Amino acid sequence: MRLCELLEQLNNLKRIPRTGWLICNVPLSEVEDVAQHTFDVTAITLLLADELERKGKKLDRERALSMAVVHDWAEAEAGDFPYTALKYLGPAGTKKRIERGVLEDILGKLPNKEKYLKLWREYSEKRTLEAKLVHAADYLSVLVQAVKYRERGNRSKKLDELWRAVHKDIKIYEKELPPVMALIKELDGRYYSLQ
Amino acid sequence: MRLCELLEQLNNLKRIPRTGWLICNVPLSEVEDVAQHTFDVTAITLLLADELERKGKKLDRERALSMAVVHDWAEAEAGDFPYTALKYLGPAGTKKRIERGVLEDILGKLPNKEKYLKLWREYSEKRTLEAKLVHAADYLSVLVQAVKYRERGNRSKKLDELWRAVHKDIKIYEKELPPVMALIKELDGRYYSLQ
Amino acid sequence: MRLCELLEQLNNLKRIPRTGWLICNVPLSEVEDVAQHTFDVTAITLLLADELERKGKKLDRERALSMAVVHDWAEAEAGDFPYTALKYLGPAGTKKRIERGVLEDILGKLPNKEKYLKLWREYSEKRTLEAKLVHAADYLSVLVQAVKYRERGNRSKKLDELWRAVHKDIKIYEKELPPVMALIKELDGRYYSLQ
Amino acid sequence: MRLCELLEQLNNLKRIPRTGWLICNVPLSEVEDVAQHTFDVTAITLLLADELERKGKKLDRERALSMAVVHDWAEAEAGDFPYTALKYLGPAGTKKRIERGVLEDILGKLPNKEKYLKLWREYSEKRTLEAKLVHAADYLSVLVQAVKYRERGNRSKKLDELWRAVHKDIKIYEKELPPVMALIKELDGRYYSLQ
Amino acid sequence: MRLCELLEQLNNLKRIPRTGWLICNVPLSEVEDVAQHTFDVTAITLLLADELERKGKKLDRERALSMAVVHDWAEAEAGDFPYTALKYLGPAGTKKRIERGVLEDILGKLPNKEKYLKLWREYSEKRTLEAKLVHAADYLSVLVQAVKYRERGNRSKKLDELWRAVHKDIKIYEKELPPVMALIKELDGRYYSLQ
Amino acid sequence: MRLCELLEQLNNLKRIPRTGWLICNVPLSEVEDVAQHTFDVTAITLLLADELERKGKKLDRERALSMAVVHDWAEAEAGDFPYTALKYLGPAGTKKRIERGVLEDILGKLPNKEKYLKLWREYSEKRTLEAKLVHAADYLSVLVQAVKYRERGNRSKKLDELWRAVHKDIKIYEKELPPVMALIKELDGRYYSLQ
Repeated sequence: MRLCELLEQLNNLKRIPRTGWLICNVPLSEVEDVAQHTFDVTAITLLLADELERKGKKLDRERALSMAVVHDWAEAEAGDFPYTALKYLGPAGTKKRIERGVLEDILGKLPNKEKYLKLWREYSEKRTLEAKLVHAADYLSVLVQAVKYRERGNRSKKLDELWRAVHKDIKIYEKELPPVMALIKELDGRYYSLQ
Repeated sequence: MRLCELLEQLNNLKRIPRTGWLICNVPLSEVEDVAQHTFDVTAITLLLADELERKGKKLDRERALSMAVVHDWAEAEAGDFPYTALKYLGPAGTKKRIERGVLEDILGKLPNKEKYLKLWREYSEKRTLEAKLVHAADYLSVLVQAVKYRERGNRSKKLDELWRAVHKDIKIYEKELPPVMALIKELDGRYYSLQ
Repeated sequence: MRLCELLEQLNNLKRIPRTGWLICNVPLSEVEDVAQHTFDVTAITLLLADELERKGKKLDRERALSMAVVHDWAEAEAGDFPYTALKYLGPAGTKKRIERGVLEDILGKLPNKEKYLKLWREYSEKRTLEAKLVHAADYLSVLVQAVKYRERGNRSKKLDELWRAVHKDIKIYEKELPPVMALIKELDGRYYSLQ
Repeated sequence: MRLCELLEQLNNLKRIPRTGWLICNVPLSEVEDVAQHTFDVTAITLLLADELERKGKKLDRERALSMAVVHDWAEAEAGDFPYTALKYLGPAGTKKRIERGVLEDILGKLPNKEKYLKLWREYSEKRTLEAKLVHAADYLSVLVQAVKYRERGNRSKKLDELWRAVHKDIKIYEKELPPVMALIKELDGRYYSLQ
Repeated sequence: MRLCELLEQLNNLKRIPRTGWLICNVPLSEVEDVAQHTFDVTAITLLLADELERKGKKLDRERALSMAVVHDWAEAEAGDFPYTALKYLGPAGTKKRIERGVLEDILGKLPNKEKYLKLWREYSEKRTLEAKLVHAADYLSVLVQAVKYRERGNRSKKLDELWRAVHKDIKIYEKELPPVMALIKELDGRYYSLQ
Repeated sequence: MRLCELLEQLNNLKRIPRTGWLICNVPLSEVEDVAQHTFDVTAITLLLADELERKGKKLDRERALSMAVVHDWAEAEAGDFPYTALKYLGPAGTKKRIERGVLEDILGKLPNKEKYLKLWREYSEKRTLEAKLVHAADYLSVLVQAVKYRERGNRSKKLDELWRAVHKDIKIYEKELPPVMALIKELDGRYYSLQ
C-alpha cells in the first residue's frame, strides 16, 4: 500500500518551519511548524463552523474539516515559502502550480488520490463558503500565534507588518463570516495590550 | 467572546510534549508535541475513513474528524501523562475524570460547549465505529513516529517495548478496521529493517 | 546491580520538562527540566541551611540536602504535573500516591531503598524543619526562574498568576525561615523592575 | 546608511534552515542554517583555492571568497527551497529570477550594489573557474554535513539519495578541480564506514 | 543581601553546555548543561555514599554532598573548557587558578563565602575520601550520559576516545571505592551492546 | 589527505556556542554559534572593505577576507571563552598561546599550514589595516546580534554591559575606519529604540 509512504512524507510537516516567522526574528528553536499550524487551522475551522451554524448559516462541515487537514500537504516536499518570497515567485498561479505538482507526486497511486486533489483545488480557489472558512481560519491562526510571540517579548517591526497585512487579507471575509470579525477585534485588543 | 481565550489555551498544545517519547531517550528538543500529534491523528483518520468507505464501510466522517481534532484538548491544561504513569493513576477512570474536569473548565461558557464534551465522551468510550477509528489512528500515529525516531538512530529498549505495547492495544480493531492491519504490517517492515 | 538501571532512569529527569512553564507561554526549547530544577533546589537548600545556621538555627544539613536531591525522582517515570492540573487530580493525596508507587518501582531491590522512600516521605509530609526548608527552596527556585523568563521578555498573565500563587504558598514558612523572606523581597524587586 | 538594515536582513540567514535536511528526517532542532552553511562554503573555498594554487593553478582568490560569502544572501527573504522542490519550480531560470529579485531589493540603494549583483551572477552562471570552485565547495559542504548526520545515527533513505545526487552533480568539476575528487573519495570512506 | 545575585549567576549553569559533548558531534540542542550534570553528580554521590556506608566505610556525607553541589559553580562565569582544551591551558594549576578567581568574585561578600571556597578547594585537591567520591561520581556521570548519547545513535570516534579516557582517569579510585568498579563494568556492558 | 579531518573539526564550530550570550540570559536554544558568527564577520568585512575602498582607502581584500574566515578556527577544539572569563585567564597572551597551540594541532601536516597560522597571527596582533578591519567587523557582529536579542525581548543588564563594553573596545578604530562609526550610530538608534 502506498499509504505508509505517504504518512512518512506527511511526517515531514512536523519539521517544516513556517518561514514567515523566521523573517520576524523568531528563533528557529521557537518557530511554528506546518503540522502545528494545521492543527490550529483544523481546530479553528471546527469552532467557527459550529459558530456559523449556531447563527443559522448552512455549511458542509465534513468538507471544511477535510480541506483544513489537507491544505498544506504539498509543503511536505516543497517547504514553506515565506510571505516575503511571494512577490518574487512570478506570474500568479506559480505557487499553485508547484503545489499541485508535489501533491500529484506524493499522492501517487493512492486509490482516493482524486478526492484529495479536489479538496486542495477547492481550497486554493477560495470560492465556496467552506474554502473561505478555511482561509479565514488560516489567517486567524497567524494572528493567535503572533499574539503568543509578542507575549514572549518579540517587538520586531516585521511582526507588526505581518499583523497589518493579515488584517487586510482577511477583510474580504467580513460579510460572509461575522464571527471572524468579532474574534479579530479581540485579538487586536490582546496584541496591542502588550507594549 | 470566550473563543479567543480558548484559542490561546489550545496554543499550549504546541508546547506540551508527548511525554512517552522522553522515557524512550528522545531528547526534549526532538520530542513530538500534542499539536503535531493531533495533526497526525486527524490526517490518518481522514485517510482511513476514505479507505474504509472505499471498501464499503459506512461511517460518519464529520464526527470522526471532529473527534480527532478534539481528542487531546484537555492536555492543554493537564499536560500529557506518559504511558509509564498510567498504572499509577489509580482506579480506572481517573484519567478520564481529570480530562473531563479540564475540558469543562476550558470550554467554560462557550455556546457549543456541550457538543465538544459529547465528542470527547464518545471518543473516550471507544464504542462507536468512529471512536474506534480515531483510537486506531492515535495508535498508528505512534508507530509512524517511532519509525522516524528509530530511523534517526534511537535504539532504546523502551522504544521497542512501546512498539510491542501498541501492537497489543491496537489488536482489538483488527476485525472491524482491516486497512489498519495492512498498514501495521508495512510499518513493522520499516521498523525492523532499521538495524 | 540495580544501580545502573536507576541511573539511566534518573537520566530521564534531564528530559522531563517542568510543565508549569509551558502553560506560561515559555517555548518547549527554553523550558526548565526537572534535573536543572533539582540542581537549583539543592543549591538553594545548601545556601539557606548555612544562612540559618549562621543565625543560630540548628538543622541536619545532610538530611536536608539528601531530601533536595531525591524530592522529584518519581517524575522520571510519572512526568511532571503542571500546577494547573493539580486541582483535577482528585482527593488530596492522589499525587503522593502516584509518586510513591513510581518510587517503589524504580528503587526496586536497591539495598538502600527504604532510606530514599523515607527521605521522600519526610519531604512530602512537610513537618520537619528540614522538609520545610526544601519546600521553601523549591518555591524560591520557581521565583528565580520566573525572573529569568521575565527578563527574556515573557509577559504572560499566567506568569504573573504563578508569581502570586507561589507567594501565597511560601508564606507559611515566613516565621521559621527568616532568610527566605528577605530573599523574596529582593526577587520581587527584580521581577517588577522588568516592565 | 542602508548598511544597518542589510545586516539585520542577513541576520535572517542564522534562522533560515537548509530545508533539504528536513526531508532527510533531520529534526528541526539539528538542522543546519544558511549562515552555518555559508561559513562552510567560505572555509572550503579558501582551503581548496590554496590547494589549487599549490598545484600550479592560477585563480583570483579574492573573487572566489567574495562569491562564497554572497552566494546565498537571497535566501534571507526567499527562504531555502529544498532540493525536492526544484523540479516543480517550472522553467529553468525560475529560481535564479526569484533570487535576483530579492537581491535587488535587499541591496536597495547600497552604493556597491552592482558589485554584489555581479558576484552573484558570476556564481549562478557557473562559467569561471572561481564560480566552479565555489559550486564545488557548496557540494562538498553538503557531503561533510551528511557524514556528521550519519555519524549521529541518521539512516534515512533520503540521505542516501541526497549523497548519490551530490556525487552526480559534482562530477563535472572532476577534471578542472582535482583536489575535489581526492576529498570526495575520503568522504565516501567516512560515510560508508558508518553502518 | 548578596544571595539573590548569586542565585541569578548560578542560573547561568542551566545554559552553560558541557563542551566536551559538542566535540563528540552531539548537537547543541541535545547537549547536557552544567546544572543537569551537577544534578547527576549529586545523585550519584548520594547513592555511592550510602553504598559505601553499607559496606562499612565511614564518610562525611554532608561534606560530600555539599562538594558535589558546589564543584562547578565557577563555570557560571568561566564557561566549561572542553577536555580537548585542557592540554593547551598551560602550567598545571591554570584551570584551578581561573576557577578560584571566578569563585571569589561571584561569592563576593557572602557571609559564608569561606565555607564554599574551602569545599571547592577540598574537591580540587582530590585528597580526602569525600573529594575522591565526588570525582568518581563526576566521571560516572560522563559514562552514563555517553551511554544515552550512544543509545540515541551517536557513533563518533571522539565518543569512543572519551569513553576510554574516562576509564583511565577513574582507575585510581578502584581500590578505595569498590562500588564504582562494579558500576563501570555494567556501563561497559551497556555501551558495547549498542552496535 | 589531512583536509577531510580538518573539515570535520571545523564542523564543530556549528556546535560551539558564543558563550558570552549565555551570560546575558540568552537561552542555549537561541545562542549564536561560532560558525554563524564567522559568517557575520566575513560578510561585514566584505561590506566594510568595499565601503572603505569607495572612500579611497587601499587595502588587501583577499587577506582581510581570509583572516575573517580563519579567525576563530581554534575554538573548534578550545571552545569559546566568555568575555567574563578573560580577566581570569592570567598573563596577557594566555588566550593567544592556547589558540596557537590548538591551531598548530588541527592544521597538523596540512601543506598550507603556515599560511593559516600567519593569517591568524596577523589577526591577533591587530597591527595591519586588514587585521583592524576584521576586529571591527567582529565587534560590529556582536552589536547587530545584540539588537536582535533585544528585539526578541531580552532586557538583561549583562546585555547592556556588553553593549557598552563593545563600544569602548571599538573606539580605537574610529579614526582609521570611518564607516564603522556611522554604522555604530545607527545600531545605537536601533538598540535604544527598543524599550
